[in-house]
Amino acid sequence: MKPRSLALSLLALTLAAASLRAEEGMWTFDNLPTKQISEKYGWAPDQAWLDHVRLSVLRFPGGSGSFVSKDGLVLTNHHVGRGWIQRVSSKDADYVKNGFAAATREQELKVPGLEVMTLMATDNITERLAKAVKAGLPEKEALKAREVEIEKIKQEMQQKSGLTCEHVSLYQGGEHWIYSYKKHTDVRLVFAPEQQIAFFGGDPDNFTFPRHNLDFSIFRVYENGQPYQPKEFLHWTQGGLKAGDLTFVTGHPGRTSRQDTYAQMVYSRDVAIPMRLKAMERRKGALVEYAKTSPEAARQASTQIFGIENGIKATNGYWSGLKDKEAMARIAAAEKDLRAKVAKDPKLKASVGGSWEKIERATQVAKGMAKDSLNVGTANSTLLGYALSLVRIADEEPLPSEKRLPEYSDANLKTQKTRLGIPSPYYPEQEAFLFTKGLEDAARELGPEHRFVKAMLGGKSAAQVAKAAVEGSKLGDPEVRKALLAGGKKAIADSKDPMIALAKKLDPIARELRKKQEDLVASVITEHATRIARARFAIYGKNTYPDATFTLRLTYGPVEGYPANGTLIQPFTTFGGLFDRYDGWGGNEAKAHGGAWTLPQRWVDKRGALNPSVPFNFAHKVDIIGGNSGSPVIDKRGELVGLIFDGNIESLPGNYFYDEKVNRGVAVDARALLHALDKVYGATGLVAELTGK
Amino acid sequence: MKPRSLALSLLALTLAAASLRAEEGMWTFDNLPTKQISEKYGWAPDQAWLDHVRLSVLRFPGGSGSFVSKDGLVLTNHHVGRGWIQRVSSKDADYVKNGFAAATREQELKVPGLEVMTLMATDNITERLAKAVKAGLPEKEALKAREVEIEKIKQEMQQKSGLTCEHVSLYQGGEHWIYSYKKHTDVRLVFAPEQQIAFFGGDPDNFTFPRHNLDFSIFRVYENGQPYQPKEFLHWTQGGLKAGDLTFVTGHPGRTSRQDTYAQMVYSRDVAIPMRLKAMERRKGALVEYAKTSPEAARQASTQIFGIENGIKATNGYWSGLKDKEAMARIAAAEKDLRAKVAKDPKLKASVGGSWEKIERATQVAKGMAKDSLNVGTANSTLLGYALSLVRIADEEPLPSEKRLPEYSDANLKTQKTRLGIPSPYYPEQEAFLFTKGLEDAARELGPEHRFVKAMLGGKSAAQVAKAAVEGSKLGDPEVRKALLAGGKKAIADSKDPMIALAKKLDPIARELRKKQEDLVASVITEHATRIARARFAIYGKNTYPDATFTLRLTYGPVEGYPANGTLIQPFTTFGGLFDRYDGWGGNEAKAHGGAWTLPQRWVDKRGALNPSVPFNFAHKVDIIGGNSGSPVIDKRGELVGLIFDGNIESLPGNYFYDEKVNRGVAVDARALLHALDKVYGATGLVAELTGK
Repeated sequence: MKPRSLALSLLALTLAAASLRAEEGMWTFDNLPTKQISEKYGWAPDQAWLDHVRLSVLRFPGGSGSFVSKDGLVLTNHHVGRGWIQRVSSKDADYVKNGFAAATREQELKVPGLEVMTLMATDNITERLAKAVKAGLPEKEALKAREVEIEKIKQEMQQKSGLTCEHVSLYQGGEHWIYSYKKHTDVRLVFAPEQQIAFFGGDPDNFTFPRHNLDFSIFRVYENGQPYQPKEFLHWTQGGLKAGDLTFVTGHPGRTSRQDTYAQMVYSRDVAIPMRLKAMERRKGALVEYAKTSPEAARQASTQIFGIENGIKATNGYWSGLKDKEAMARIAAAEKDLRAKVAKDPKLKASVGGSWEKIERATQVAKGMAKDSLNVGTANSTLLGYALSLVRIADEEPLPSEKRLPEYSDANLKTQKTRLGIPSPYYPEQEAFLFTKGLEDAARELGPEHRFVKAMLGGKSAAQVAKAAVEGSKLGDPEVRKALLAGGKKAIADSKDPMIALAKKLDPIARELRKKQEDLVASVITEHATRIARARFAIYGKNTYPDATFTLRLTYGPVEGYPANGTLIQPFTTFGGLFDRYDGWGGNEAKAHGGAWTLPQRWVDKRGALNPSVPFNFAHKVDIIGGNSGSPVIDKRGELVGLIFDGNIESLPGNYFYDEKVNRGVAVDARALLHALDKVYGATGLVAELTGK
Repeated sequence: MKPRSLALSLLALTLAAASLRAEEGMWTFDNLPTKQISEKYGWAPDQAWLDHVRLSVLRFPGGSGSFVSKDGLVLTNHHVGRGWIQRVSSKDADYVKNGFAAATREQELKVPGLEVMTLMATDNITERLAKAVKAGLPEKEALKAREVEIEKIKQEMQQKSGLTCEHVSLYQGGEHWIYSYKKHTDVRLVFAPEQQIAFFGGDPDNFTFPRHNLDFSIFRVYENGQPYQPKEFLHWTQGGLKAGDLTFVTGHPGRTSRQDTYAQMVYSRDVAIPMRLKAMERRKGALVEYAKTSPEAARQASTQIFGIENGIKATNGYWSGLKDKEAMARIAAAEKDLRAKVAKDPKLKASVGGSWEKIERATQVAKGMAKDSLNVGTANSTLLGYALSLVRIADEEPLPSEKRLPEYSDANLKTQKTRLGIPSPYYPEQEAFLFTKGLEDAARELGPEHRFVKAMLGGKSAAQVAKAAVEGSKLGDPEVRKALLAGGKKAIADSKDPMIALAKKLDPIARELRKKQEDLVASVITEHATRIARARFAIYGKNTYPDATFTLRLTYGPVEGYPANGTLIQPFTTFGGLFDRYDGWGGNEAKAHGGAWTLPQRWVDKRGALNPSVPFNFAHKVDIIGGNSGSPVIDKRGELVGLIFDGNIESLPGNYFYDEKVNRGVAVDARALLHALDKVYGATGLVAELTGK
């Protein structure tokens, strides 16, 4: 590490402040800013606290959760559990809409396919990897050599520990780790409130605050048919938070792009995001159109519409960050500073000097391929997705693991196969409807003469192709998929399934595009982002945190309001505020804006039993992003005080930079959960188990 | 009126839409868009409805109000009545802080100096004026000739009707009117809630929504010692509003600048507003500093601090409109369109063609004088203000009315004299403190060599000058002021009062500056703004409304939320929402942000008696601005449904342009007033009188 001049320029000071603002940071457990926390709050986590928290937290598919009772109860968000709640629902028992409460353990519903994981160990393999990859290799070969070595290490560790091992690249490849997880595969639904109270305010209130969402669901992990007794779990707080109290959030932020180069951000702002938004709007349009065809169609599509609306609002929020001229100027200035420092150091200059330009050129290549990347694919068809996986597994499995596409390596193949074998709700009308739209969109975007369009449509209309393929395919049946999996290459070659036929046409086109994308874009960006990350370490040291990677992180900060809407936003909302929002829109009678602010009848009936002053949601100064959903909010004692379910609208630019003035996490207050379970749902058994009484 | 081509260009269409958006408009009663209202709402006011409303509404000093009972009860805002409530308060009876309720008519408190007015008649004198002012006169002479003629007409009409007549220039002088008012001079305080519930949320929540202000106060007009029985008054609604319901607001919007030229707006944006904001911040700083010296100082200064914070927030809001690049581009385009049309018409071109440039040049002159205009004056001293008035009246009164400064003309002199004779709270410590700061600011802004600074300080420090003048002056005593008034020129010449001495030094400097300002800026802008207004009539017709002039206007539109803060803002808040905001900030215990969201103890005690679903405030699509405060919200039946007290933060750019998407008026719901009077204050007699039961 180079000693820095004491005579920091004003710019450098600004940059230093900008690069590490107060509560900024999604910290890995090995590199917490303990000194900084301690200086500000007079207390910082010790190893016992960290182990307790780490072992209590779970990774959920797409989100986070935590153990909250000695008998393996798991708390997460309703919107994290939602797809799984829908999976155990049916036309006659819509647990998403009506909620679910198991009165006894026998009534707890096993969720097929749901797996949750606890992080047991983390190992830094950066040095080992560096040794295995010869210096001076061309970018593509270096990438491949690294992949092969990672795969090897993973296999070794997996066999040794019996845990599920994952490679984690931190700091854009500046560090490589293996994270080892204990996987739980018997997870049962215990409790879910009605969607309408979990997601009160609907799409309009989504990603905003003040908020009134009881966004939680409760599962239980079983092992050998018995409730699992986790080594660690979070005790429910005896007290409760107040404004200014220090909170911690541990969970799995999915992805941030704060270390992207300026050129990458410009590419995202001007090309990738606008294009993606357009595609999402189209997909939402198709789903909404389908949902209108019948109440059952509406039920089927509701989770997907929820997901896509959520995605659209989030993406617009990220985009707003990139359109913030002042913020972009700061980012450009920080990059300029780093590049100037690199230029002054001959060794760094030789290895990293050209990296920014190479990445910029790669984004220009990406721009030329962006339309193809977005439109060449399975065109919204679930069955075509299955078919493509089956075709590819048949081709890839016979190859040595390191020669395969990485998602079919030995370490990943089992997951892929399991996924194909799980029964999953399948609706032929919806499938045909969305596939038709997907093909139409691709044809319109790419033009009728595009190789992919010609291969898929073969002169027919999108509707004809989709109808024939959906009606003729048996891939909706998991047994059929299993049989094809078992049959290998020959079974695929012999298959007359029209989706398999389409997948065979799609596969070479998609592979070619992917190869081009990997060779000309991904490998260049990966390699040079790594070099830049190393230069950053060399110049600024490691007193920072890596971009989010859907792996365990810790963030901390106080409960605090923020300036917005011309005033100061209050840190807590209350049960009284929930009903104010309900009444303010005219309640269940008015059903304003598609009923966004209506309440389940149960809530209207029980209103008198509720204490309006009990806190409902709160805002706090923690640095989170999608994937943190379901993360527990923990106090200094390591107790559960809340449940993260969102960030405010001002937190979305956090994908690219952190703004401590207005970026806030949004959580359900632990007191709200108990009060509602007790007074609205009369779930006394659950309350007793959660509070350990 | 020139016929317009049917082949409107897209630009023209945009401009047409922009110039008259949906519910836009502060309409005069003679030119209501009745057809437009009727087409949209299937109903429009008739003459009887309009007369009922006009005679029910009152002009308050700085705001509006209305008769709401047959015995002359007057409803206005707390913040409109606040200065008057303070005037009848004392150290031992702080009615602003603690509220006031007269249990009997005998307890109703006469407010010295408070006058309210009903508009009885309006007469268009445009033609008569045009005849009296010879065409082709130079700008300055035309201005003077017009003033003389106006004064003459006013005197005539006043003598004939016995009413109070005011000249009103509409459409920047495109029309001239005389408005004749019945003036009520015996006004008594009947009820005021505690400031803390009237202004709940303090400066942070000011000009925002959702909101929870019970911003009302009730006075009663007396005549000959008896409650006055107005010809018309507003009956209290039997029902109540819901989202989408049509509302009307009648009151006195103070000032808008929507017809300013683009150059004037640029001047406001870049020169006038930033300078004014700086001065306001300084004045606020001085008041806050003074308020910290003792609890009594805090009480004395509270209304002024409230006023200045309100002004700062409003001015920042106006400014934000001018900084809105898209809006400014629309305004520039509209001006370009008008100028192009003028250029095509030889007659118009001759009279108006050069007007925009002349106004622009005048703003450049104004820019050169802006610092002097802002700082040469009474330097925050109330006594020096009295002294200057006394010195000037002594000089002006002997002159013929038309030769005097207009504020001392026969029509205005009486008001000036009355004002000087009214007892008004006077606090020597505050006076010395603020005068010192004012002199220090002027010296710093203008420099020690400036003529004004030298004249005021005469080599001494600001503190020395202020202390000596305040301690030596007797002008805080209304009897002393009356004696000086009565003594005329000689009394002033003989006076040894140090404030009179300072005023004599200030007067010539201020007069000279004023003359320069009038000759080079005001007269040019007045004349050419009038020419532009006439051109606008000639080209677009009179299907529009004039800028606000603190005269009676009507605006209409539905109860409606709006997009903000990432979501949709609800149209109504509720009593439950009030307590949510209270609880959300930690209540009276936490006293967050200087206690902005604390509640009077009475409200905490009575919480259980309140129905949380009763509407508290609401947002509606009406076009209002400062001066509309205290305006009644009226429904189609002509009944009182609410009480305007504010606009949302998005309404403030309304000073320059109207944005129907987000511009909303904010009112107290009539149901909230009754519910609080009944359940919190137990004011059953008042409730009975208001509801006519």
